[in-house]
Amino acid sequence: MPTFAQSEDEKMLRDIFDAALTEGKAYEHLRQLCKDVGPRLSGSEGADKAVKWGQKVLSEIADTVWLQPVMVPHWERGDTEHAEIRLSDGTVIPTQICALGSSVGTPAEGLTGEVVEVFGIEDIEKLGEEKLKDKIVFYNRPMEPRLINTFAAYSGCVDQRSSGASTAAPFGAKAVLVRSMGLRQDDLPHTGVQRYKKDVKKIPAAAISTNGAKMLSKKLREDPKLQVHIKLSCQNFEDKLSHNVVADIMGELYPEEIILVSGHLDSWDLGEGAHDDGAGSVHAIEALYLMRKLGIRPQRTIRCVLYMNEENGPNGAIEYAKQAKLQKMNHMIAIESDRGGFTPRGFSIDGTEDVQNDALKQIEKWEELFKPYDIHHFDKGFGGVDIGRLKDQDIPLVGFVPDSQRYFDHHHASNDVFEEVNKRELELGAASITSLIYLLDKYGINTNEN
Amino acid sequence: MPTFAQSEDEKMLRDIFDAALTEGKAYEHLRQLCKDVGPRLSGSEGADKAVKWGQKVLSEIADTVWLQPVMVPHWERGDTEHAEIRLSDGTVIPTQICALGSSVGTPAEGLTGEVVEVFGIEDIEKLGEEKLKDKIVFYNRPMEPRLINTFAAYSGCVDQRSSGASTAAPFGAKAVLVRSMGLRQDDLPHTGVQRYKKDVKKIPAAAISTNGAKMLSKKLREDPKLQVHIKLSCQNFEDKLSHNVVADIMGELYPEEIILVSGHLDSWDLGEGAHDDGAGSVHAIEALYLMRKLGIRPQRTIRCVLYMNEENGPNGAIEYAKQAKLQKMNHMIAIESDRGGFTPRGFSIDGTEDVQNDALKQIEKWEELFKPYDIHHFDKGFGGVDIGRLKDQDIPLVGFVPDSQRYFDHHHASNDVFEEVNKRELELGAASITSLIYLLDKYGINTNEN
Repeated sequence: MPTFAQSEDEKMLRDIFDAALTEGKAYEHLRQLCKDVGPRLSGSEGADKAVKWGQKVLSEIADTVWLQPVMVPHWERGDTEHAEIRLSDGTVIPTQICALGSSVGTPAEGLTGEVVEVFGIEDIEKLGEEKLKDKIVFYNRPMEPRLINTFAAYSGCVDQRSSGASTAAPFGAKAVLVRSMGLRQDDLPHTGVQRYKKDVKKIPAAAISTNGAKMLSKKLREDPKLQVHIKLSCQNFEDKLSHNVVADIMGELYPEEIILVSGHLDSWDLGEGAHDDGAGSVHAIEALYLMRKLGIRPQRTIRCVLYMNEENGPNGAIEYAKQAKLQKMNHMIAIESDRGGFTPRGFSIDGTEDVQNDALKQIEKWEELFKPYDIHHFDKGFGGVDIGRLKDQDIPLVGFVPDSQRYFDHHHASNDVFEEVNKRELELGAASITSLIYLLDKYGINTNEN
Repeated sequence: MPTFAQSEDEKMLRDIFDAALTEGKAYEHLRQLCKDVGPRLSGSEGADKAVKWGQKVLSEIADTVWLQPVMVPHWERGDTEHAEIRLSDGTVIPTQICALGSSVGTPAEGLTGEVVEVFGIEDIEKLGEEKLKDKIVFYNRPMEPRLINTFAAYSGCVDQRSSGASTAAPFGAKAVLVRSMGLRQDDLPHTGVQRYKKDVKKIPAAAISTNGAKMLSKKLREDPKLQVHIKLSCQNFEDKLSHNVVADIMGELYPEEIILVSGHLDSWDLGEGAHDDGAGSVHAIEALYLMRKLGIRPQRTIRCVLYMNEENGPNGAIEYAKQAKLQKMNHMIAIESDRGGFTPRGFSIDGTEDVQNDALKQIEKWEELFKPYDIHHFDKGFGGVDIGRLKDQDIPLVGFVPDSQRYFDHHHASNDVFEEVNKRELELGAASITSLIYLLDKYGINTNEN
């Protein structure tokens, strides 16, 4: 009786949302993770604390919790991050920068050089060694404000940050400054991963705020010979042992079939990693919590994975995917929340071609159930960095999609703090994900039911 | 050729969004209105400044700008707003309150009384004079967090604020304290309109923050004989002359047919009226600005109305509707933005039955055009307080609907400030409204085109 089934499902989704909004723990868990644990970059003490916290919280909810060992990078920012613009007339203008993840430091006395402004890594080869030797390369392509989805704008710029240093170093550049990945004009530099290519000289790499970038660009037009002085004390250490936190509610009928829900436990060292990805971590925990709270006994195993080292890895995701293959784990589907704790809009479906099509088809059947919560936007698209590592195992991947407008105001910056997460928006996200899990568990994919 | 038409429309919507996001003035206009003008309650100097500001800004955009005279209430909060809880053991606990609009003040020395907690105006008659005489009535029904649309939660509580005083006064209550209309637990009291009924004693009415309400409720359980002491210096003055600001871009083909777009210029005196309704005001202005910027020459007249006195009126709306009738103005449709400057979701369509159905049917035709901007949620529902006064003239009414989750965190409180409005979210709202106007102007309603 489909009518009965639907009204039962309608009721259950209503119960899930009600519980999330009135008895949920997501907001309190986020407070703990942001305020009691704090920033938690891989390899840091904060990351160790986060693992212990995740293990403890999940122990009170799940049937089993285990830690999956994974080696992670260990990089520290150190005490000194200083930059100043030195004009030809002797004027000195200080400007705020922050080192990019894995950057080497400068010599203790800092380094100084003229600046070449470029608008993308593709400019580097055109300029060549003649123009770039001994210069500081200033990557200043802004995020495209006309893109409605801010993640698309991010994708169009982030190569400047991730590979700007290694692209410029072979041409003799002595350091790079990268315009922060943000759509807002403000004074906050945004960090993030940058990767040195093998056998390329490691030169210091730092982010400059959008206001700083605007000012530097203007000053360069007026005074092309100005110099920038940079001092960074960051350094890389030996890799360290850390862990993914994995927790299961065992399925009653098909315990070997896993529905995975995840966020990442590590964060950058600036701010508190509230939206990135405290929100995703507590979303994943809350899915298990709400199922318990409501007495939902799943047919399949519901697994929460709090990945380690998404930010400058993703070693946690690589290790989990490797073990999934080795141990022949049977994942029905994998869900990730890593786009912040904003008002939910829907889900983005990824996977190898047939797998993606089947999953989208299945989820679209539930459109009417999701409509009352305004979360019925289902599209093909990226699932997430961590679950992405499972794609070649033909597992359907689902990315949770909240509103994206404010995400890059906080991303990897010192204002990614608990206070910037709205309680209701966070809770609605948790309820959305839990509702999807409930339906996936009940109906599976590619079945004739519902 | 519908394909050509659609791609022309697609292109125009893209141009509108691009212009709003890269060359728009909405955010700068909002800064001016919040920071240069500031709070602007009807009858205040701020309101006069706001009228002048609106007139000036629109003069640079529209073909004609005129001021429509309207008499408005004049109420002032004064310097003193004080409340303290006096426990039976002598302990005194101060708590923050704010007077509700049009409230009378207390005697200069304040007033003191025992407190009766109720959970809605319907409790009053049940308790009767015996329980309420000489008491302070404490209305403490919270907004319902389970409602996804926070405006529905507001509607379910706001009668405590708007008619709580006049409901309790006939039973001898000496004052009322009303739990602030907000979903968040915080320390900010939210003001708002309250209306004294004719021939009922006017007793002081104030709002207490959600944290204050929680605390007072707890203390009352422990100590039912506790007293509350309130001191308020607010008072009512003679009505004053103010104005609606009305600006037209004349239609080239059908200048007598008006497409009205509106927000309200007045705000409460706490905060800066940024979301309520600075955002709506600059949305309406921006619609005209973007049409000019893009060289769109409308067939119909596009009229921006910045209403005066929505908050404790709506005298501006009543006057405009009266003149519309008297002068036989021909409004094709009226649009209002008064739900904040958050990410747009769609539009809510109101009107007398057939009018509403026809308008919804027309707007639904454009769903595919709106989809790329995620603003394709069209439903029957409330249009807005100001345009609502035109409903009985059989004019279709359209309310702009942004995300509602954060609106009541700021509504009528001291944190409704410019900094809490996100530039992109504001701009996307302006572009959404402008796109709708463009299509309404081009195709009309109830035509066979598109």
